[in-house]
Amino acid sequence: MPFPDIPAALGQALYLAAQAIGLSDPNPRVGCVILAPDGRTLGAGHTQAAGQAHAEVMALRDAAARGHNVRGATAIVTLEPCSHHGRTPPCCDALIAAGIARVVAAVEDPNPQVAGQGLARLRAAGIQVELADAATAEAARELNIGFFSRMQRGRPFVRLKSAVSLDGRTALPDGRSQWITGEAARADGHAWRRRAGAVLTGIGTVLADDPRLDVRLVPTVRQPLRIVLDPQGRLSAAARILQPPGEARVIGPGRADLPDLLTRLGAEGINELHVEAGPVLSGAFLDAGLVDELLVYQAPMLIGAGRPLAELAALPELAAAPRWRFVEATPVGADLRFRLRPT
Amino acid sequence: MPFPDIPAALGQALYLAAQAIGLSDPNPRVGCVILAPDGRTLGAGHTQAAGQAHAEVMALRDAAARGHNVRGATAIVTLEPCSHHGRTPPCCDALIAAGIARVVAAVEDPNPQVAGQGLARLRAAGIQVELADAATAEAARELNIGFFSRMQRGRPFVRLKSAVSLDGRTALPDGRSQWITGEAARADGHAWRRRAGAVLTGIGTVLADDPRLDVRLVPTVRQPLRIVLDPQGRLSAAARILQPPGEARVIGPGRADLPDLLTRLGAEGINELHVEAGPVLSGAFLDAGLVDELLVYQAPMLIGAGRPLAELAALPELAAAPRWRFVEATPVGADLRFRLRPT
Repeated sequence: MPFPDIPAALGQALYLAAQAIGLSDPNPRVGCVILAPDGRTLGAGHTQAAGQAHAEVMALRDAAARGHNVRGATAIVTLEPCSHHGRTPPCCDALIAAGIARVVAAVEDPNPQVAGQGLARLRAAGIQVELADAATAEAARELNIGFFSRMQRGRPFVRLKSAVSLDGRTALPDGRSQWITGEAARADGHAWRRRAGAVLTGIGTVLADDPRLDVRLVPTVRQPLRIVLDPQGRLSAAARILQPPGEARVIGPGRADLPDLLTRLGAEGINELHVEAGPVLSGAFLDAGLVDELLVYQAPMLIGAGRPLAELAALPELAAAPRWRFVEATPVGADLRFRLRPT
Repeated sequence: MPFPDIPAALGQALYLAAQAIGLSDPNPRVGCVILAPDGRTLGAGHTQAAGQAHAEVMALRDAAARGHNVRGATAIVTLEPCSHHGRTPPCCDALIAAGIARVVAAVEDPNPQVAGQGLARLRAAGIQVELADAATAEAARELNIGFFSRMQRGRPFVRLKSAVSLDGRTALPDGRSQWITGEAARADGHAWRRRAGAVLTGIGTVLADDPRLDVRLVPTVRQPLRIVLDPQGRLSAAARILQPPGEARVIGPGRADLPDLLTRLGAEGINELHVEAGPVLSGAFLDAGLVDELLVYQAPMLIGAGRPLAELAALPELAAAPRWRFVEATPVGADLRFRLRPT
């Protein structure tokens, strides 16, 4: 009888977890695979929409629907099973009640008030508990980078998106920006919007481009909340960003305090905040050190005079510039996509 | 008796050819491997400095030095053997005289007055002649992209190098640019300078930075010619660019006609021209459509206000911008290196 292939099942569970993007917010993206002692898959599932079943319950239901008995089985999960009553009963209880003998978790729950308690509860019930390898833990954490941010820092993971030419321009001097990047990059940008609990922009961008900022070039179940910072109350009720699908919120009149805003959005359950703004608001986020990731699409063209990626405070010297590191550089159509994080 | 492994020997010959970078200019970078019918390597070599032996002669000499008889052997070469008397006798004659039975060439000589004549001469001598696969031909052509440019267009292949921030800045507003990119990128930049027959800059850069523009961060046998465009005769005799190692040339007083300059440099045997200049001269090359490759090092930092990559003519609309394509995006230290060519 072969030993269950844990690494392969962890990969499958991560794949399932990713299916919860655009669905499970504010709940984390979690996948679960239940393996028989001989390695057969008995059931699998991922987190559903908020208030609905978590991954473990979906996998147990899947096994039951297939007529499998999961007593003595191994449950592979991409996040420590929850041990508290939220909108649904704790997943730990469901695993214990089902007679699961062993649980392999990719990573512990980041919530400081929860971390390890789920695993402890499973152990107390006589279940053998293991944690996955470091690479799997990292992948599971990345998939829920916003949930981790909210649990550990009380604020969303802030991703600032820009589309620039090789010479760093986002538009012609008069603001025309359609199009610098190609269709593939624009669709890819929507896939990153889909990850976000909220998309944030400034009134300048809304007045200039009247963007919808919804998710439409890739399929999604839910729409992120759209937020417009409008300090002087200039937003028109006819603005497209206020139209369905999805909800919109205007912050203003009055200048928003960005750190305070992030704390409030965290308290509301926004895991990832997608900032898609003009140079002034982008510069404000950057100068305040509030950007956790730069998502930059770079088009193979030179524009010359034009709008910058961000209006930044003057540097006294080059060495004073905050340093980032490339975490990715990937071709997307004819463009390149970079992601960078602070060093 | 196994058939000689032609693809492996072509790879070895390309590797040898690359050893002629920084050595053989203005002659092309060529490698040669001589294989016995049973596949053993009898001799190998690459083009030496101008006026000295070509690859085929080096490989024949190598075989002789090892005491091997090359009668009936296969010669693998990365470029069609020459059939004319230059500073050295024709390589075709050497191969014929040595009793080589078969020649596999990666690509034909690009010189319209030569192309195919070398292969024809070999065939006329009863030698079996083959051309390599398309991928090998492309690699051989890339290695000699400047030689091909000079032979086919009468001018060098122009590579414009820049080092920019994510927001496309090459320096602070006051011109300070040390350092945007890291040590690895700067050494890599010298490796690209080494490929060039000449490095060209403008008087503005010389007055501002007093650069040497020689090859010193990577080993080299020869130094590229350094060229300064100095229309108003402002260059000081003390400028570091005028000091050894290597030669320097000042073009001026008077405004250089760039297409004419390229033709003259081609006639002088400059295969690759490396332009490392400020925004005005870079813009002049770009606006004139004279840049064959952009070599851009991008550092993971944002600068905000600063100097642009190039001063370009205003665009009437984004669709009017010349389109490039990424041919490469490679991490170099903490930076990224791109190369782009016109579409």
